[in-house]
Amino acid sequence: MNYRMILYIVGQIMKVLGGFLLLPIIVGAVYGERHIIMSFGIPFLITMVLGFLFAFKKPANNSIFSMEGFVSVAAAWITMSAIGALPFVISGEIKDYPSALFETVSGFTTTGATILMDVEKMSKSCLFWRAFTHWMGGMGVLMFVLAIMSSNDVRTMHMMRAECAGPNVGRLVSKSKFSAQILYGIYISLTLSEMGLLMAGGVPFYDALIHACSSAGTGGFSIWNDSIAHYDSLYVEMVIAIFIILFGVNFNLYYYMLIKKFSLAYKNEEVRTYFGIIILATAIITFNVSGLYSSFGEALRRAFFMVASTITSAGFSTTDTGEWPVFSQTLLLILMFVGSCAGSTGGGMKVSRIMIIIKTGIQELRYIVSPRTVATVKMDGKPVEKDVVRGACNYLILFMMLMAISILLITHDRFSIEESASAVITCMNNIGYGVGRFSPSGNLGGLDSFSKIVLCFDMLLGRLEIYPLIMLFAARKD
Amino acid sequence: MNYRMILYIVGQIMKVLGGFLLLPIIVGAVYGERHIIMSFGIPFLITMVLGFLFAFKKPANNSIFSMEGFVSVAAAWITMSAIGALPFVISGEIKDYPSALFETVSGFTTTGATILMDVEKMSKSCLFWRAFTHWMGGMGVLMFVLAIMSSNDVRTMHMMRAECAGPNVGRLVSKSKFSAQILYGIYISLTLSEMGLLMAGGVPFYDALIHACSSAGTGGFSIWNDSIAHYDSLYVEMVIAIFIILFGVNFNLYYYMLIKKFSLAYKNEEVRTYFGIIILATAIITFNVSGLYSSFGEALRRAFFMVASTITSAGFSTTDTGEWPVFSQTLLLILMFVGSCAGSTGGGMKVSRIMIIIKTGIQELRYIVSPRTVATVKMDGKPVEKDVVRGACNYLILFMMLMAISILLITHDRFSIEESASAVITCMNNIGYGVGRFSPSGNLGGLDSFSKIVLCFDMLLGRLEIYPLIMLFAARKD
Repeated sequence: MNYRMILYIVGQIMKVLGGFLLLPIIVGAVYGERHIIMSFGIPFLITMVLGFLFAFKKPANNSIFSMEGFVSVAAAWITMSAIGALPFVISGEIKDYPSALFETVSGFTTTGATILMDVEKMSKSCLFWRAFTHWMGGMGVLMFVLAIMSSNDVRTMHMMRAECAGPNVGRLVSKSKFSAQILYGIYISLTLSEMGLLMAGGVPFYDALIHACSSAGTGGFSIWNDSIAHYDSLYVEMVIAIFIILFGVNFNLYYYMLIKKFSLAYKNEEVRTYFGIIILATAIITFNVSGLYSSFGEALRRAFFMVASTITSAGFSTTDTGEWPVFSQTLLLILMFVGSCAGSTGGGMKVSRIMIIIKTGIQELRYIVSPRTVATVKMDGKPVEKDVVRGACNYLILFMMLMAISILLITHDRFSIEESASAVITCMNNIGYGVGRFSPSGNLGGLDSFSKIVLCFDMLLGRLEIYPLIMLFAARKD
Repeated sequence: MNYRMILYIVGQIMKVLGGFLLLPIIVGAVYGERHIIMSFGIPFLITMVLGFLFAFKKPANNSIFSMEGFVSVAAAWITMSAIGALPFVISGEIKDYPSALFETVSGFTTTGATILMDVEKMSKSCLFWRAFTHWMGGMGVLMFVLAIMSSNDVRTMHMMRAECAGPNVGRLVSKSKFSAQILYGIYISLTLSEMGLLMAGGVPFYDALIHACSSAGTGGFSIWNDSIAHYDSLYVEMVIAIFIILFGVNFNLYYYMLIKKFSLAYKNEEVRTYFGIIILATAIITFNVSGLYSSFGEALRRAFFMVASTITSAGFSTTDTGEWPVFSQTLLLILMFVGSCAGSTGGGMKVSRIMIIIKTGIQELRYIVSPRTVATVKMDGKPVEKDVVRGACNYLILFMMLMAISILLITHDRFSIEESASAVITCMNNIGYGVGRFSPSGNLGGLDSFSKIVLCFDMLLGRLEIYPLIMLFAARKD
């Protein structure tokens, strides 16, 4: 393995992180918050020193394979989280380091689970940083480095693959020469559009900025204890719901639309299924909860927002779903696992992976009924490569195994099985809210430090889709 | 598909069921219970009429393939359950048919979940019938028919495969010419040994008979409301714990021991892993619960019994595990999914299947780290056939999919997600007790008829391992 090149990449990412750390300093300066000099200044210096130390000179041997891509991404995300947590501790707004680390990992992985009892007490710069970690984590920081470096060769693909979520059905990414620059271009445009629309609806600049960052990463951090419900505005809810759904779409789709290949965009089976699930789940839940609300419109509004918030893994809430019928709660729980599209900023197992898994299950039944039929799983009308099918099924197996181990590790804490399972499910799928004690109204602050560290790993496993982290720890020198 | 042959097989099974229905009549006669004439007489007549109607003449075309084997087994199990439920309703000891059906399916599938609030009120003949369904279901009724018919050709294998649990690693069954007669011989010997040992410990004849039948099928029905705890005897607990563990072992092992191939028996990786898991889980739980009991010995006794009862899916209880630390509860929950060995009377996903799945997960990680390595999953030192690996992984996928659908169907009832999930998990794994409201002390009587029917399907899906039932409903004529 090319360790010097890995160090170089991590160094580049540190420089970018350093650059991004200047933003909360600006926010703090605008709002006259003095603590920023220390709380963001020190992390800024650390990242810059590390950045120039690691990435002082590009190594002569700059060959990169998928292994190096995975390991750099895992190493970078852990370092980013470790440093990103410092502002919360230095400012004293989060007392202990494990809690600050949890909050930061929850930010970068766009989970949005919080250990804070009262977010409204926090300074504006820290709240901005918290929401901005969502924005960075959504598209990926390595992706940002690639966007700046603008190299568009095979090496780049190896690294993009490590940070980009979901199975590569039909290897769309590499075929379309879809560069990191185009990806970030779309990402920034969508974020700014949402911010503009929120402001057009009367939301103040700062609030619009925070919630646009938070939506873009499908994270879920807010600046209000009652989240989006604070605005009590149908307009705001609809803008956010529609944008998180858009951020949960495979970004290839926007690329196709940019290059005016609308038929390719329309044909995408994953995206159509994703919208289909949203419409169907909204309809079913609206019907199921209609008795709880004064009008059909009110039920539809609540159901649509919570379906969007859950399937995209944003985890914003406007409703305490604990009061909903258990049927609707279970449907939301299933949506948590389904998640959004591959190549989006959303979490979960990804629609295309679930589609491959279900199609494999149906193929297995067909095979048992008549063993002579040749079983092929198809997506977008074309057979899916065997490696991709095997990968999707084995991902489910690894996911379930790691989930069981994590739940077992959390149970030493003082919570019930259901609560422990809920915490692990919400973290591994990067949702941010769960059922039981860890419902939208609850939070994870009551967990001990060991449990917080376990959940940090779960969030990273979910966001980076298991492999990079495993490789970082299991990789042998060769 | 050869429908006439399927009907013929179902007819044969009906005759056997009719024969077995004479046993509770004898029990009732001994204890002077008059209702037996109607409550067991009518079902006896029905089975006999159906038996001679269906199996009047062996069809000229008696070719049987795996498809016919699966469909006959599914059809037979459903018919058996439908008729087996009648005595409870006719005697008036269970008021409504869906509840009686639930109790019977729970019996045949060796689940042992009950809807009865007070089993001690029931007549001795009904209690015997209830426990005897465990014994029949444990080894399988079709297997019994094959044992009588004593034909030992390829056709028999097709049918044995449908009723015998677990993946056929290395196709041991067909290689060893392991006939249904030998299987039933071992089964009856073990049952009688347990009965003898229980009686030697002072347990009355009737009690010993019931609990031996119940243990043999790893079912869990008892004649006491407080189950095995009623005897408050270390000896009784240990006899039952050791025997359910023995009934959870792959019966191939006993065959190897019978033909004195001890090295083959010792080398069996699944059985060694099964014992390893039991020892390890007992040690961990003993340590974890030791604070709750007066002595280490007491903790060991409780832990060992509950581990044995859970991994074998017997579901007898001596302890309210709801009072145990959540860590131990979670470990038991994981053991429920693991289950016992393939080719045993135990439930769950089966140790060998879980081993294949975990090994596949590890292989997937190896493959990702270095894609050039050839990935092969090995059991007993030999590579496992690809079809078996694919089958095991896809079984997990189907199991999870059906579990999610079942939970969703149950949630219309008035229970929480955790309780609904617990009911489905306990039924699909054929355990008989769950966490939450459905803990050892609770029961499933509070569910409505629709939920009971869903759970009946889940128990059958678990016992027959999904495929036969799916084929019964999905099979096309060809």
